[in-house]
Amino acid sequence: MMRTYEQGEHSSAVWAGVSGTLEKIEALDFLDRLAAGDLDAQSFVNYIHQDGLYLNGYAKAMSLLAAKAPTAEEARFWNRSAADAVEAETVMHADLLSDDRFAKVSEEIAPGGVAEPSPTTLGYVSYLVATAATEPYEAGVAAVLPCFWVYAHMGKVLVERAGDLTANPYAAWVQAYDSPDFDSAVDDAVTLYERCAAGTTEDGRRRMADAFAQATVYELHFWATSAAFQDWSV
Amino acid sequence: MMRTYEQGEHSSAVWAGVSGTLEKIEALDFLDRLAAGDLDAQSFVNYIHQDGLYLNGYAKAMSLLAAKAPTAEEARFWNRSAADAVEAETVMHADLLSDDRFAKVSEEIAPGGVAEPSPTTLGYVSYLVATAATEPYEAGVAAVLPCFWVYAHMGKVLVERAGDLTANPYAAWVQAYDSPDFDSAVDDAVTLYERCAAGTTEDGRRRMADAFAQATVYELHFWATSAAFQDWSV
Amino acid sequence: MMRTYEQGEHSSAVWAGVSGTLEKIEALDFLDRLAAGDLDAQSFVNYIHQDGLYLNGYAKAMSLLAAKAPTAEEARFWNRSAADAVEAETVMHADLLSDDRFAKVSEEIAPGGVAEPSPTTLGYVSYLVATAATEPYEAGVAAVLPCFWVYAHMGKVLVERAGDLTANPYAAWVQAYDSPDFDSAVDDAVTLYERCAAGTTEDGRRRMADAFAQATVYELHFWATSAAFQDWSV
Amino acid sequence: MMRTYEQGEHSSAVWAGVSGTLEKIEALDFLDRLAAGDLDAQSFVNYIHQDGLYLNGYAKAMSLLAAKAPTAEEARFWNRSAADAVEAETVMHADLLSDDRFAKVSEEIAPGGVAEPSPTTLGYVSYLVATAATEPYEAGVAAVLPCFWVYAHMGKVLVERAGDLTANPYAAWVQAYDSPDFDSAVDDAVTLYERCAAGTTEDGRRRMADAFAQATVYELHFWATSAAFQDWSV
Repeated sequence: MMRTYEQGEHSSAVWAGVSGTLEKIEALDFLDRLAAGDLDAQSFVNYIHQDGLYLNGYAKAMSLLAAKAPTAEEARFWNRSAADAVEAETVMHADLLSDDRFAKVSEEIAPGGVAEPSPTTLGYVSYLVATAATEPYEAGVAAVLPCFWVYAHMGKVLVERAGDLTANPYAAWVQAYDSPDFDSAVDDAVTLYERCAAGTTEDGRRRMADAFAQATVYELHFWATSAAFQDWSV
Repeated sequence: MMRTYEQGEHSSAVWAGVSGTLEKIEALDFLDRLAAGDLDAQSFVNYIHQDGLYLNGYAKAMSLLAAKAPTAEEARFWNRSAADAVEAETVMHADLLSDDRFAKVSEEIAPGGVAEPSPTTLGYVSYLVATAATEPYEAGVAAVLPCFWVYAHMGKVLVERAGDLTANPYAAWVQAYDSPDFDSAVDDAVTLYERCAAGTTEDGRRRMADAFAQATVYELHFWATSAAFQDWSV
Repeated sequence: MMRTYEQGEHSSAVWAGVSGTLEKIEALDFLDRLAAGDLDAQSFVNYIHQDGLYLNGYAKAMSLLAAKAPTAEEARFWNRSAADAVEAETVMHADLLSDDRFAKVSEEIAPGGVAEPSPTTLGYVSYLVATAATEPYEAGVAAVLPCFWVYAHMGKVLVERAGDLTANPYAAWVQAYDSPDFDSAVDDAVTLYERCAAGTTEDGRRRMADAFAQATVYELHFWATSAAFQDWSV
Repeated sequence: MMRTYEQGEHSSAVWAGVSGTLEKIEALDFLDRLAAGDLDAQSFVNYIHQDGLYLNGYAKAMSLLAAKAPTAEEARFWNRSAADAVEAETVMHADLLSDDRFAKVSEEIAPGGVAEPSPTTLGYVSYLVATAATEPYEAGVAAVLPCFWVYAHMGKVLVERAGDLTANPYAAWVQAYDSPDFDSAVDDAVTLYERCAAGTTEDGRRRMADAFAQATVYELHFWATSAAFQDWSV
C-alpha cells in the first residue's frame, strides 16, 4: 500500500475533497509518458523551465508565511522550505543542462536560460503570493500545501507506475519527490495544516479548504499545460 | 481626434510598446457587439460578474500601493482610487440587477450573486496583488495602469464606434468609462507612471514596461474570455 | 453624560480593560493646558509635527488593512479612513502655518517643514504598520482603533474641560475631534472591532485585546512625550 | 588590527557615517561589565530575554526581504539568515536556562519564560518589520544590516577587551558573535548592501543610509536600555 500523509480529520477531509482533481492528474498522458520514459524532450524541458519559474514564486509565498507565522518554530519551517525550494530549482536546472540532449532543447525553448512563464505558471505563483500576502495565514498555509502533498503523492504513483527506471532518461526527476527527506517535509506541512484547521473558525476552515482545492486545480493545470506548451495567444 | 493620455516620454514609449496588444483588443468581436448592442445577454452578464470580482482584487492591489507610496499625496490617490473601484463594482452590480432581462440571466450564471472567477480573472487579479506586494513600488504602479488607461481608451473607441446609443441595452456600460472624472483619474495615474519612470533606474524602467505589457495582455485575455465563458476544465 | 462608543460586549470589555491607561491620559498636564489655552507654543507645535508624522504612518497601516479586509465594504472603510487621515494632516499643517505665532516656532522646530520622529512616534507608527503587515487582520483592526476611539473620547473630555473656547489659541485643535463626522467614523471602526471579535477564536480575541491595549499605551506615550520634546539621546 | 567588514565605497561611507553612534555603544558600561564578567545577573538575563524577542521580529523582517528579493540567490540568503536567527534565539535561551544562577533570575523576570518587550525592543523590531514591509527592498536591506555588522564589530571589541574569558560567566555570549560563520554571514550581508547601493538611485542610497543610521541608533538604545530595565511607565 502506498504511503499516505493525512495527519487527522481536517487534512483527511481536505484530501478526500480533491479526489476528483487528483484522478484527473493521475490520468494525464504527460505523467504516463514520464513514467514510461518516452516523453518527448521538448515537453520535458518546457516542464522543467516552468517548474523553475514556479519554485521561485513558491519560495516567495512561503517567505511571506514565515513573516506571518504565529510561532518561531513555524516561521523557521517556512524559511527552510523556501530556501530548499530555491535550491531544488538550482539543482534541477544544473541536472538538465548537464545532459546534452536536454541542454540543446533548453537553449531553443529558453534562449540564454530565460523562459517565459505560461498563463498557468504565472497564474499559479501569483495566486500563492497574493493569498499569502492578503488572506489569513491559515489560508496561505492551505494554498502552498498541494505543491508538497500532490507532488509527494505523484512521486509515489510515478515510481510504482514506472517500475524499472534503469533506461528511463527522466529517472532523476521521477525519483526526486520520492525521498524520506521530502516525505518528512510533507508530513510537517500537513501537520501544520491540521493544527491551523483545528485552531481556526468554521469560516477559516472553509477558506483553507477553498485555497487547498484551488491550488490543487492549479497543479492539474500546471502538468496539463507544460506538455501543451501553453502560450499567451488568444 | 480621440483624446489621448500620454504625459511624457516614458508613458508615450510604454503605450507605443503595447500597440500590438491594443489592436487585438480593438478587434475583439465582444466589443463590436457591445457597441452595436446585439451582444447576447449571457456574455454580457458573465463579463460584468468577472469585472466585479476583478475590481475587488484591483482595489487590494491599489491598497498595497497606498501602503508603499513614497509620498502622502500618492498614498491618497491610491486609497481614493481603491475606494472608487469598490464603489464602481457596487453600482455596476445594482445597475445589472435593476434590469429584468439581466437579473434573470445573472441568477443562472451566478446563483445568489456568487460568481466563480475564471482562470483569467483569478490570474489577472493575483498578478496585480502579487506584483504590488513583492515587486518595487514603481512596478506595481505600472501593473495597475492598464486597467485605467486601456479602459479609458476603449471607452472612447466604443462610444465612437457605437454612434447613437438610444436603443443600445448596454449604453450605461459603454458610457461608463467615457467621463471627465474617469479621464482625470487616468491622467493622474499616467502622470504618476511618468514620475516613477523618470525617478528610477534603467532596470526599474524595464520592470515597469514589463509589468505594463503583462497587465495589458491580461486586459486582452479578460475581454476575450468573458464572452467565451472560460472555465477550469482542462 | 458624555457620548460613548461601545457597540457590544467585546468593545465594552476592551475599553474597560484600558481604563487605567485612559486615566493616565486624562491626567496629563499637556491636555489640561491645551484645554486652558496656556500651553506653550513650542510644545503645541512639536505635538502637531509629531502628529503629522504619525498620521502618514497610520494611513499606511489602514491601507494594509484595506488590502487584507475580508469584504469590499470593510476595504472601502479603510481606504476612505486612510485618505481622510492624510487629508487631516494636510489641513492641520496648513492651519498651523497660517498662524504667525506658530509658523515661526514651526520653522525653528522643523526647519523647512521637516520634523524628525521621536522614539515614541516612530515606535507607534512602526508598531501599527508591522501589526497590520504580519499579524492577523483582526489584530490590525484592534491596533488602529485607539487612535479613533481615544481621540474621540479625549475630544469630548477637552471640550467639556475647556468651556468657553473664544480666547483659546488651540480652539481649532480642541474641537477637531469633537465632530459628528468623526464620531460616525469612530462608531464604524468600533462596530468593525465588535464584528471581528465576534467572528474569531478565543486566541484571536486575546490578540485583539493585546493590540488594543498596546496601542492605547502608545497614545499615552504620544501625548506625554510631545510636550517633553523626547529625542534620541541615551 | 581588528577585522573589518567594508566591501566598497557605499558600505565604507555608511559605516563611517555612524561612527558617533558606534562610539557611544563602545562606551556603554553594560558592555564593559559584560567583558569584565561582573555584570549583575538581572541585567544580563533581561538583555537575553529582550534579545530573544528581538530575534523573532528580526527574522520576520528578513522573511519579508526574502519575499521581495530580486534574485533567488538573495532570497535564499534572507531565508537562511531568518532561520538562523530563530535558531540562535532557541540556543541562547537553552544556554541561559541550563545555568542555575540565570535560570532562577529568568523565572523572576519572565515568569513561565514569557518576557514583555520594552519600548525600545518593540520599537526596533516594529521599525524593521515596517521598513521591510513598506519601504523599497534596498532600504529594508539597510535596516537589518546593523544587527549583523554592529554585533560582529562589538563581538571583536568585547573579546579584545575581555582578554582571558576562563572565569567570565558570560564567556559563551561574548564569543557568540566572534565566529568565522557569523563573520561570513556579515560579509555576505554587507556585500548585498554594497550591490543594492550601487544599483539604485541617489534617492535610494539616501534612504538606505537613513535606515542604516536609524537601526544603528536602535542598537545603541537596545544595549543601553537592557541594563536599565526600561518599562512602559511614563
